[in-house]
Amino acid sequence: MNYQNLDQTQSYKKLKTTTPVDIKMELTEEKVNKYEIKTGANIKFNYAALPVNTKILEILSGLSKEQDLIEKYKLILSGATMNPGEDRKVLHHLTRMDPLSPVIFENHNIRDFYVEQQERINIFAGKIHSGQIKGSTGKKFDTVIQIGIGGSDLGPRAMYIALKEIVGEKAMMVANFISNVDPDDAASVFGNTNLESTLFILVSKSGTTQETLANRDLAIKWMGKKNPDLDPSKHMIAVTSATSPLADSDSFLDSFYIDDFIGGRYSSTSAVGGAVLTLAFGKDVFKEFLDGAAESDKNALNEDIKENAALMDALIGCYMRNILDYRISAVLPYSQGMSRFPAHLQQLDMESNGKSVNRNGESLGYKTGPAIFGEPGTNGQHSFYQLLHQGTDIIPLQFIGFKESQQNVDLTIDGSTNQTKLNANLTAQIFAFARGSQNANPNKNFSGGRPSSLLYGTKLTPGALGALLSHFENKVMFQGFLWNINSFDQEGVQLGKKLTNQILSGESKDKALNLIAGKLGI
Amino acid sequence: MNYQNLDQTQSYKKLKTTTPVDIKMELTEEKVNKYEIKTGANIKFNYAALPVNTKILEILSGLSKEQDLIEKYKLILSGATMNPGEDRKVLHHLTRMDPLSPVIFENHNIRDFYVEQQERINIFAGKIHSGQIKGSTGKKFDTVIQIGIGGSDLGPRAMYIALKEIVGEKAMMVANFISNVDPDDAASVFGNTNLESTLFILVSKSGTTQETLANRDLAIKWMGKKNPDLDPSKHMIAVTSATSPLADSDSFLDSFYIDDFIGGRYSSTSAVGGAVLTLAFGKDVFKEFLDGAAESDKNALNEDIKENAALMDALIGCYMRNILDYRISAVLPYSQGMSRFPAHLQQLDMESNGKSVNRNGESLGYKTGPAIFGEPGTNGQHSFYQLLHQGTDIIPLQFIGFKESQQNVDLTIDGSTNQTKLNANLTAQIFAFARGSQNANPNKNFSGGRPSSLLYGTKLTPGALGALLSHFENKVMFQGFLWNINSFDQEGVQLGKKLTNQILSGESKDKALNLIAGKLGI
Repeated sequence: MNYQNLDQTQSYKKLKTTTPVDIKMELTEEKVNKYEIKTGANIKFNYAALPVNTKILEILSGLSKEQDLIEKYKLILSGATMNPGEDRKVLHHLTRMDPLSPVIFENHNIRDFYVEQQERINIFAGKIHSGQIKGSTGKKFDTVIQIGIGGSDLGPRAMYIALKEIVGEKAMMVANFISNVDPDDAASVFGNTNLESTLFILVSKSGTTQETLANRDLAIKWMGKKNPDLDPSKHMIAVTSATSPLADSDSFLDSFYIDDFIGGRYSSTSAVGGAVLTLAFGKDVFKEFLDGAAESDKNALNEDIKENAALMDALIGCYMRNILDYRISAVLPYSQGMSRFPAHLQQLDMESNGKSVNRNGESLGYKTGPAIFGEPGTNGQHSFYQLLHQGTDIIPLQFIGFKESQQNVDLTIDGSTNQTKLNANLTAQIFAFARGSQNANPNKNFSGGRPSSLLYGTKLTPGALGALLSHFENKVMFQGFLWNINSFDQEGVQLGKKLTNQILSGESKDKALNLIAGKLGI
Repeated sequence: MNYQNLDQTQSYKKLKTTTPVDIKMELTEEKVNKYEIKTGANIKFNYAALPVNTKILEILSGLSKEQDLIEKYKLILSGATMNPGEDRKVLHHLTRMDPLSPVIFENHNIRDFYVEQQERINIFAGKIHSGQIKGSTGKKFDTVIQIGIGGSDLGPRAMYIALKEIVGEKAMMVANFISNVDPDDAASVFGNTNLESTLFILVSKSGTTQETLANRDLAIKWMGKKNPDLDPSKHMIAVTSATSPLADSDSFLDSFYIDDFIGGRYSSTSAVGGAVLTLAFGKDVFKEFLDGAAESDKNALNEDIKENAALMDALIGCYMRNILDYRISAVLPYSQGMSRFPAHLQQLDMESNGKSVNRNGESLGYKTGPAIFGEPGTNGQHSFYQLLHQGTDIIPLQFIGFKESQQNVDLTIDGSTNQTKLNANLTAQIFAFARGSQNANPNKNFSGGRPSSLLYGTKLTPGALGALLSHFENKVMFQGFLWNINSFDQEGVQLGKKLTNQILSGESKDKALNLIAGKLGI
């Protein structure tokens, strides 16, 4: 396999000599028709408003081959050690699709292991929903609270919010989430919950996450305060690795397992997302979500960049980052259900590709992952879009939209429904950014030339959500390969943890640091 | 008054020749002690971990004088036309403090007008709280829902979330917010609310905001569906300008007024925030919030940059943006209550300073406002901090912290409370970013040199929140003066609105645009 830095490729050199595309002029009907790729669950990726043309796409296609992008993805699927820093396989795809050939580890078939855990969750959830398992004071469980942070929180929470309204009255339980070590986070949630009918899910792969253990202890304390008869061990399950201190503990009703081959930010389709989403919505909804993700995974195997949405998105993103020097990207879903999807993508993308060394630990001479932010439209239009339209930096945009709303509660006002207004706004923005508009008053002038892509589907269903999740996971993976970095470790979070422990144990001798700590009451 | 571009100043030329400060080496006890400024409500701004030293501060102090920053702020307070593009005064400060001399417009004393509106709100809220005014089916109002978008939503919503837990059981009403034209937004809120005891606040300065009127109509429809006896006009008040189509309408229980001199993103301390926050928390809480803001406003009048927190923050931010070429800034509150404060700052900063022309409409040869994003710590640590620590771009950080939690529901685990753990994390991050840490394994190496500042106080009270809000408003204002731009208009949002209306009215002849619209069901 060919592991080389981006700037060692011939294609990169060729890209540097290309003339940038003026999307102001080149956003044509033909391009809108032609520059579109279908991925999972009938989601389409339209890239007509991105700054590429036939020539640049040809070079990007060559780059895909030079960097062996599809071959490396196949290595992931085949169970190769694609997280070299931690000497681990990278197997989140296997939580939702069969591998190309069986992946065996320590005599276990890993795909079977993931499927088995989900089946155990389905059976357990069935018992909770039927009332066969009740709370320790005899109440039927109607609420589930996930305690976890980072990947054990952002993805599952974003997915829950995205599916809550479409599942609607068919939902089996209400879900809530506690993540922050700030005690106010837990206090707000507990204050509004009947703990007698609440089931907690403690999620920590290592079983040692400081925030999560602290919040578990707060939960137990709170239960005792509300009702001394409550037995916390009858109100809690764990999602953890089989070797963690939390596994098989008497403190839990049951435990469900993940392994070291699923990174936190890639764990929404594993038991980390599976437990809470199955408890809240039932197994069929979760299955549909997994199937949508698997469809996008399959699309990402296509060698032809014009038939592979995640690959195309990754390649053009790399072109914009490294050749056009755009440093930030905004994700703008025109769907209220996706309100926390950008927060999940922030982790997915920035934690995966915010790296300065290649997979061999050598410094890189080019930029890697951009900063990501976003809010739902049309809200963002009334907030930060001013800078996107007229600011001094160009920020590429990733729009997401759906023909239909989730709830179909709508009204025709002045000849159009709210859903139509929403999508008219989305369409208008793509063109306003690309085309701009000349005005004699320079303050009302729009230079245009601001690129965007559009991922769209019929409706934000569980399948569509899974397809979108997988699209971005695979985009980030391909970009990691392009940059020749390891997208699957996160050593950058370690130093802070180490210093925190030094402060808490009173070991820090640094006067400046101790002075700041003192100001904060430590 | 001296209106010149930043790059026309002597100080800017001097700044370009300075040697950058290596904060890795220069974050000392002495600096932590010395580089600190007290602003409103005893909030302190510590800038020891920002890349400045005595020499650079001296030049920045000169820059403040060259650009007449304090004089321009005084012009704002005195009622000069400081929003030249729209030919308007800029008077949000007067919602919470007395002007230097009375500001009279069309024979009205504007300060008196703002005070009078808040007094009318206080009286009205008193009648709602006492039950003197009840819903149309005789139920006491216990819920308030604000319908507004952009500045009528983000600020008031962020403030409500920040104060909800500290007010706690003393709160008078529960508040909720609807903003997005996506009909799913309204449907989720209405589905969980008893509309018989709900009071709506319709907020639109112009009275013509598309999203807000559409959501009003949805609210009225929903009321009729729930109970035909509900009279919407007895469940709704308006906050609008006295000349808008919504003013004095029979469709409302009452109307409260703002004027053209308060921009949406600066309106949290006007009736836009005043109505919902007073209804939710009572007039005393809102008064404390205003007083905190007024204290920071007063601090911002100080000529000495070492005694003026907002001014110092603005100047160093400009140095990092224009000399060090940092394009993004992250706001990281270590307080769950401030979870939506970054979303408010996104609007405040990016809509104010995302401009490419100066106040005379001339193109600028330097960068203006950066992109802003953020999430509460410690959550962010488990998400995007990887890129902040080890990514290829340096992103300056703005930390916010408090000695005490809001709710004081805490537990000592392993020798420390959760609040102590929270602040140990915050302290550790400041030093991890600044100092870095050498490691033989390049993957575990931290280059350091990553700047941050810290705003901190004892507790997130209404006063502290007001002081922080005003700090950022004034920082953004000073930066606008530095860049010689108009921070108080937002022409960049107009083109999208225009194109949206063309699509909705079927006037668009653009084939590419109509093709995209068709894909989205229009």
